[in-house]
Amino acid sequence: MGNFGYELLKQDRTGARLGRVTTLHGSFSTPVFMPVGTKGSVKGMTPEEMTDMGIEIILANTYHLFLRPGHQLVKELGGLHGFMNWKRTVLTDSGGFQVFSLCKLRKIEEEGVKFSSHLDGTKYMLTPELAIEIQEALGADIIMPLDECTPYPADRDYTIRSMQLTHRWAKRCKDIKKDNGQALFGIVQGGMYKDLRKESAEALVGMDFHGYSIGGLSVGEEKHLMQEMVAETVQYLPSNKPRYLMGVGTPEDLVFAVEMGIDMFDCVMPTRNARNGTLFTRKGKLVIKNAQYERDHSPVDETCGCYTCRNYTRAYLRHLFMMGEILASRLNTIHNLYYYTNLMQQMREAIKEDCFEDFKKKFYSDRGVAILPG
Amino acid sequence: MGNFGYELLKQDRTGARLGRVTTLHGSFSTPVFMPVGTKGSVKGMTPEEMTDMGIEIILANTYHLFLRPGHQLVKELGGLHGFMNWKRTVLTDSGGFQVFSLCKLRKIEEEGVKFSSHLDGTKYMLTPELAIEIQEALGADIIMPLDECTPYPADRDYTIRSMQLTHRWAKRCKDIKKDNGQALFGIVQGGMYKDLRKESAEALVGMDFHGYSIGGLSVGEEKHLMQEMVAETVQYLPSNKPRYLMGVGTPEDLVFAVEMGIDMFDCVMPTRNARNGTLFTRKGKLVIKNAQYERDHSPVDETCGCYTCRNYTRAYLRHLFMMGEILASRLNTIHNLYYYTNLMQQMREAIKEDCFEDFKKKFYSDRGVAILPG
Repeated sequence: MGNFGYELLKQDRTGARLGRVTTLHGSFSTPVFMPVGTKGSVKGMTPEEMTDMGIEIILANTYHLFLRPGHQLVKELGGLHGFMNWKRTVLTDSGGFQVFSLCKLRKIEEEGVKFSSHLDGTKYMLTPELAIEIQEALGADIIMPLDECTPYPADRDYTIRSMQLTHRWAKRCKDIKKDNGQALFGIVQGGMYKDLRKESAEALVGMDFHGYSIGGLSVGEEKHLMQEMVAETVQYLPSNKPRYLMGVGTPEDLVFAVEMGIDMFDCVMPTRNARNGTLFTRKGKLVIKNAQYERDHSPVDETCGCYTCRNYTRAYLRHLFMMGEILASRLNTIHNLYYYTNLMQQMREAIKEDCFEDFKKKFYSDRGVAILPG
Repeated sequence: MGNFGYELLKQDRTGARLGRVTTLHGSFSTPVFMPVGTKGSVKGMTPEEMTDMGIEIILANTYHLFLRPGHQLVKELGGLHGFMNWKRTVLTDSGGFQVFSLCKLRKIEEEGVKFSSHLDGTKYMLTPELAIEIQEALGADIIMPLDECTPYPADRDYTIRSMQLTHRWAKRCKDIKKDNGQALFGIVQGGMYKDLRKESAEALVGMDFHGYSIGGLSVGEEKHLMQEMVAETVQYLPSNKPRYLMGVGTPEDLVFAVEMGIDMFDCVMPTRNARNGTLFTRKGKLVIKNAQYERDHSPVDETCGCYTCRNYTRAYLRHLFMMGEILASRLNTIHNLYYYTNLMQQMREAIKEDCFEDFKKKFYSDRGVAILPG
């Protein structure tokens, strides 16, 4: 295991887990939300601003950094930590998801995936071995094996073949990875088929990774399908390793999945929505450009302790947003990341205090939702 | 004088002045550079970041705030100080300069200037009285009378008529202004005619303002003309009032004008250049996108104490800029504003220590310039 470790501090009666993960760059408490720093910057934020609000781990995208500025350059500049001036934990994805979602010309072969850069059309082949090489150069603390994020919808035959390829790629990644303290997770696929999810989880657990990711969800399927797949998959994951639900999601998704025993999350939603003027509050989303906020003296959320809510009115935030001011993106991002970080903090507290059910009741009643959505 | 005051602490043998200005919202040391917060935000910066680097006064633009979100709304929200969460001094311009530079359909009459909004074409008339009313609503600590910024080039006849109109408007502003602690400056015009500059200065000094601005410079004229006009005008300004050179300028301009006895400056250069990737250093300008910085591990300026230089390499700043990251604008703006603020601080120190000539010698030798430019 090298420098990586997971300690399960508590699992409450709902299934929610409280834990602590140790990495090459410090440790972080779980369940955790990881802000996305696609190109080596969580858009609009300095590292200190994130650390100050309790953020202990961020995610960066291998695909983008491979293209610009290139992983060798990042390595020369001290890896992602030195490059970005971020002193805590970094997780990188494998690049596969971006190749599948951003690149037009791509061809999946046994060897890897051929693609043309979405920036200038340059042709590359991303193999499992290259995905690891890039992530070793980037120096992330937690890295991912190349996988195929099975598209949705996909028939059973395609899903099986895709899953099996993901397993073979996972093995190749594990075999080539250096014993350097970086943690490598396995990524469970299997589409929307419960038995394939089970098969995938068991195959990967058999290979013994440092942790397990659940991939291929939040790809357009209905909410109940995502929830069923999470519930199914999680049963086959070992309790002594962290579990990461990739690319999920809304505050409601996080509350659901934490209860299912998921430990780690990432999503562009808080940062991207912030830049689009959509703010998360305990009552739901607030669209700051709406005319109703033009003369509104109150903060985004009077119960929120973030810098933005402590210092600025909705009227000012609306003005900044309408004028396209950079400060709008900054203040909105600070608020949304604080909201997500604080939500995870509240859930950790609830697990610790054995009151996750009460937390959930309040979470939904604040939203004016009496009954849990299915 | 109400709550406004200027104390001349020292004038050294070169002519440079060290002073302290007191306003409704704290005091500031002069010579001072005022960052421009056009629409109620110094682009990319929080108030705390500015205060932390020693910024004591900022400028906001009356024209932009009049159009959006409107001065009455700003007033409802606590004036500019409450609106922006800026606790120190604010200076506003009269709106005239923006009307002349941004609006296509404008007509100058005795009563005021008719114009169409550059945003949506709505027709307005900005009168001296309205300029004061807006600035009283915005609640700035130092306000400006409506003036005509005489275009360049302009013949003598036009310049005389323009200057005389500015004087009549100045009088109307002074007459209507409330006795509320806000300071009103007079704006000297007179184009590129020395005798008119003298006439304008004397006329305005005769009206007794809280301070004096020199307007109509940096409008396209050659550098030596600007310098001659500053040198000419300043002789006719009283030593017991602050002197503000509007819209100027480059670091070299500031060094020149401080020696001439100017106390206050504003310019969009540090903030706008930052967003365009041009950084000020003691050796001159650095264009961060240049390929030579791609793998450059050093900070923008190794002698600079700003947050950006203490924490980031040129290579990272180049990457952020090339990727269009918000953090590029932020880190570059922090650096450039620190550069300008620090330059003024160094000049104040030099005046205090009677070594302005030494300061100037070092300022130019750092730039590789042996002889002062004419």
